[in-house]
Amino acid sequence: MPRTRSTAPSAAPPAPPAAPPAAAPGPVRLGPDARAAFRPAAVDITAGFWHTRQETNARVSVPQGPGLLESAGNLHNLRLAAGTAEGAFRGAYPFVDTDVYKWLEAASWQLAQHRPDDAELAAEVERIVALVAAAQQPDGYLNTWFQLVKGGERYQDLRWGHELYCAGHLLQAGVAHHRATGRTGLLDTARRFADHIGSVFGPPGSGRPVDGIDGHPEVETALVELYRETGERRYLELAAYFVDRHGHGLLGHEAYCQDRVPLREAVNVEGHAVRQLYLLAGATDLATETGDAELRTATERLWHAMTATKTHLTGGLGAHHDREDFGDPYELPNERAYCETCAAIASVQWSWRMALLTGEARYSDLVERTLYNGFLAGVSLDGERWLYVNPLQVRDGHTDPGGDQSARRTRWFRCACCPPNAMRLLAGLGHYFASGDEQGLQIHQFTSGRYAAGPLAVRAETGYPWHGTVALTVEDTPSGRPWTLALRIPQWCRAFRVGCGESAYDQDDAPVTDGWLRLTREWAPGDRVVLDLALEPRLTAADPRVDAVRGCVAVERGPLVYCLEQADHPGGGLDDLVLDPTRPLTVEHRPELLGGVTTVVAAGRRRRPADRGWWPYGTAPDAGPGSAAAPGDGEGDGDSVELTAVPYHAWANREDGAMRVWLPLS
Amino acid sequence: MPRTRSTAPSAAPPAPPAAPPAAAPGPVRLGPDARAAFRPAAVDITAGFWHTRQETNARVSVPQGPGLLESAGNLHNLRLAAGTAEGAFRGAYPFVDTDVYKWLEAASWQLAQHRPDDAELAAEVERIVALVAAAQQPDGYLNTWFQLVKGGERYQDLRWGHELYCAGHLLQAGVAHHRATGRTGLLDTARRFADHIGSVFGPPGSGRPVDGIDGHPEVETALVELYRETGERRYLELAAYFVDRHGHGLLGHEAYCQDRVPLREAVNVEGHAVRQLYLLAGATDLATETGDAELRTATERLWHAMTATKTHLTGGLGAHHDREDFGDPYELPNERAYCETCAAIASVQWSWRMALLTGEARYSDLVERTLYNGFLAGVSLDGERWLYVNPLQVRDGHTDPGGDQSARRTRWFRCACCPPNAMRLLAGLGHYFASGDEQGLQIHQFTSGRYAAGPLAVRAETGYPWHGTVALTVEDTPSGRPWTLALRIPQWCRAFRVGCGESAYDQDDAPVTDGWLRLTREWAPGDRVVLDLALEPRLTAADPRVDAVRGCVAVERGPLVYCLEQADHPGGGLDDLVLDPTRPLTVEHRPELLGGVTTVVAAGRRRRPADRGWWPYGTAPDAGPGSAAAPGDGEGDGDSVELTAVPYHAWANREDGAMRVWLPLS
Repeated sequence: MPRTRSTAPSAAPPAPPAAPPAAAPGPVRLGPDARAAFRPAAVDITAGFWHTRQETNARVSVPQGPGLLESAGNLHNLRLAAGTAEGAFRGAYPFVDTDVYKWLEAASWQLAQHRPDDAELAAEVERIVALVAAAQQPDGYLNTWFQLVKGGERYQDLRWGHELYCAGHLLQAGVAHHRATGRTGLLDTARRFADHIGSVFGPPGSGRPVDGIDGHPEVETALVELYRETGERRYLELAAYFVDRHGHGLLGHEAYCQDRVPLREAVNVEGHAVRQLYLLAGATDLATETGDAELRTATERLWHAMTATKTHLTGGLGAHHDREDFGDPYELPNERAYCETCAAIASVQWSWRMALLTGEARYSDLVERTLYNGFLAGVSLDGERWLYVNPLQVRDGHTDPGGDQSARRTRWFRCACCPPNAMRLLAGLGHYFASGDEQGLQIHQFTSGRYAAGPLAVRAETGYPWHGTVALTVEDTPSGRPWTLALRIPQWCRAFRVGCGESAYDQDDAPVTDGWLRLTREWAPGDRVVLDLALEPRLTAADPRVDAVRGCVAVERGPLVYCLEQADHPGGGLDDLVLDPTRPLTVEHRPELLGGVTTVVAAGRRRRPADRGWWPYGTAPDAGPGSAAAPGDGEGDGDSVELTAVPYHAWANREDGAMRVWLPLS
Repeated sequence: MPRTRSTAPSAAPPAPPAAPPAAAPGPVRLGPDARAAFRPAAVDITAGFWHTRQETNARVSVPQGPGLLESAGNLHNLRLAAGTAEGAFRGAYPFVDTDVYKWLEAASWQLAQHRPDDAELAAEVERIVALVAAAQQPDGYLNTWFQLVKGGERYQDLRWGHELYCAGHLLQAGVAHHRATGRTGLLDTARRFADHIGSVFGPPGSGRPVDGIDGHPEVETALVELYRETGERRYLELAAYFVDRHGHGLLGHEAYCQDRVPLREAVNVEGHAVRQLYLLAGATDLATETGDAELRTATERLWHAMTATKTHLTGGLGAHHDREDFGDPYELPNERAYCETCAAIASVQWSWRMALLTGEARYSDLVERTLYNGFLAGVSLDGERWLYVNPLQVRDGHTDPGGDQSARRTRWFRCACCPPNAMRLLAGLGHYFASGDEQGLQIHQFTSGRYAAGPLAVRAETGYPWHGTVALTVEDTPSGRPWTLALRIPQWCRAFRVGCGESAYDQDDAPVTDGWLRLTREWAPGDRVVLDLALEPRLTAADPRVDAVRGCVAVERGPLVYCLEQADHPGGGLDDLVLDPTRPLTVEHRPELLGGVTTVVAAGRRRRPADRGWWPYGTAPDAGPGSAAAPGDGEGDGDSVELTAVPYHAWANREDGAMRVWLPLS
């Protein structure tokens, strides 16, 4: 029950607005016949947490891109392929072109939304667009590795060659560049390659010479987007062909390559995490555009299986360093969590498509968790360094392998897939934050800024995620017609209040269904809605089948997962620290720390391990479970220690050292 | 205090026997100047547990070797190199020759000890010895990969080429063949290669062209053994050169290649597990022969660091699939334990050398644990199939990768290092079981059989490890001179009795020092000693820093680690089973099961997990540690289940399915 007198929201569906909200110039633009619950809306992020990250991306990361692509050889390779330079191919992988394409996509979104007047960036983009075009072969084919190293031997090594993967990123860059600038140069290059692929690949009996799929999916989602941008259904049909040819043994039924079983029959995600997630993004695009109910059911089934059994607390995905694979259900190691930054990005891309398709809030719950934790940990606070893998623990005495899999941030990687991928996500981030439908506007992610869907616009002010208040003011609204402002109540949220005009609700009486708080009325410009999400810090435990964290808890606050870092705990390592769950957690906002973070302090102690000699295993006490895991434990409670937890996304921005997300209780 | 009247053993050191015990014809034969506490003795294993395994090795595994080496192409490659066949090199690795060498070593030990009259095996050995000799180049070089695939380009890729690694296995095979048969054919081939290496490799200023080390250690321990067999000190000096050139950046300071830091400075084992262990075996050999105290200290330090922080309960070593590496201290995952069978073998080889060098029982404690668990799990009961990796858990819903890293046993591997390595260990196993010194005979491992060191011989009867009684009868003894019969009291043993003539002791009063029960007297033929080790099953817990097994126990009995297998637990998977540590464990010997094993049955229950929806993490109750790991736990205790544990070494000999060593308590 509303706690103040008020007009309760109408139960009847409101009349539709005159026109559906216009599609936003972002990475996902649905086609006219799409069967989606929501359509993406445009969000300008104008201040606060994500604005700071976008500014760093715009001022530091993206501008450094061309220099890094030059020094790593990517641009040199394009010149070689164009015949305008001499020398040898540089780089260790057949997919180095994609670093260029992802950077072009990042720069395009940035030109569109953040730096429309950045002439220098625009010139860099056009310069590189021209390099790409010059490297393209007359029939549309483009892959510098195969042109330069493999003597033009095309499509002979679909398992490892990444030719269609590279094409996919080119297509996405071409679409982005066109949407952002209105220019057709890169889109034309992309279409020529797509048309070439369409002339080569097809099912048996199609008359086309190759019946095959790429070992690294990506072209599927890109082809759907190319269809959306051009209206050419042949791209959609080609995407459908590729999606459905996975799982039929064209690549030896390897799970790694997403070829063990068709998606429509799969019961859980498997194989290489990024490959699986890009394929699922493409399948979701396809189901959205075609209304293919079986495919939609499969994507829903796989998302739920993945999230319930193969997702780390941070939203990170991929349990194995070896082959960058998903592990078994509930196999979620901490120190060897792979959680590639690209997998987090792919997860956001897929979950956003699921949110649009189904209208269900849980998909954006996972997007939020992943953005604030598993993804953002991959980007340094200064925007200059990156993590490829995102473990949940770095042990005392960790021997760092260096290279791509280091727990120390790196300026660029041998396999540099993650940095430009992070750049493109950050540059277009507002496009994952809101949607519209016939009934109104849905706010999926909270930021200070302006949310707009067609004729509807709302301005928001918030200090989220440090503060839980989101103040919304209606700016644009059609007059005389009710519509629904839907706010996602995060899955982690146990208590909130919302005030809307003269009405006020809390978690017990607010009109929340399946994660959406829906406020329906005739709105007038200036109408205010104030949402207050309680941000009490909390201790989180895992399903008991997650063996890796038995007897442990994690500290969370709002959407943020916290961790301990060595830098805050001098006088010993982290692996002997124990958290006391009976003592209160305290919160302090520290503007001087890590660019300004809210810390959570817990009471704990430092275990004083007995000298167990040379063998670390011993007789278990037959007492209760708490003591049994510690032979020789109980030899002393150890010193009290204040445990200072910082947001996981901010770790590894100080000196090297241990880190833990999950903290033992004994 | 002895419990019966008796002559207590003399405290004064006994007079030495006339001559030191003769060296046995086994894989380690110390040189005349060796500074070792013990010298290896000869043990004939005549019945019981290991006899059965040796028989299977002799009747099934070893005889199948030549056929497998033929079908995998190894012998074909030798013929190609000899110019007696045509075709292409077969096999995926530059070290395929070692499969042949290890098989020759296995067959040699077998000819020496188990099948001296096996003319067919002897003929096979000579046939293959001749193939090897024919493939050797005139200057002594021999490596079919480099001869056939790399155009004879030698020593250009020491990091990956494995040329010296292959040489090492050839040297070991040559020594074994000579010791076993007295024939010099293979030893001559080996010496020619060793001399060639000696003419090429040397420190700067030595006048030899290459200052380098091999990316895969092995040649070091082999060169020391070649010195022992030939008496030529130059082989010892070459071994010393290679041992000490590791860690100086000749291979880019890579830990994987054992080049990050010199052994003398290292504080813990690191990098590729088998590489590290073979290098340490060589360093121990070197310290033994030279008396190099600094090197000995380093090996002791590294053994203790490894055992205390990087050893799985099974004795398995290597925490990472990726690069087959050791992990960080206390990083001991279950489902992703690598625990390569070859690493277990290398650990036995190294620890045995440490036992001889130092005389300390703990080294043979680890040998016992590794033999019965981490090593033996790699060999199927029927001797026909193998495991390359030996995890401590296979999850419900495990997606098997197939290939070398499968949890299903395989007849041969693409990288077939483990099967012939296991064959050679089993064929020469008795040589790891006993030693002698000036004071008498030391029994390190228990078996039915005959232990002999020089003029001393003892016969043993035992049903170990199923039964704890070992009955020993003195057979050969010099008259009129006391000597010491030393029995290792296993580290796991909490209670025992020993009767010796009219004396009887138990764990409280027996003359045990540092793991050795020493019985010193003037022995007469027919004197009896009966040792009774209590084999109560027990629950074992780990150091609390082993995060992977917090809140869990393992079942052990005697030297055996136990596990649950799916086959014994129909009606559900294993990952929801919980052990009740307050209920007694019961033991049953089941001759019909897995070739005859003693099972341990524990009381438990099957957790009934609540439906937690799509997100497997939730609010932790702020109760004690036992409950905190289970959000939504306590929703029902679940059904009682009898947990039937079988020896870990016998797992994966029935249908595929889940397996667990560590069992949660809640």
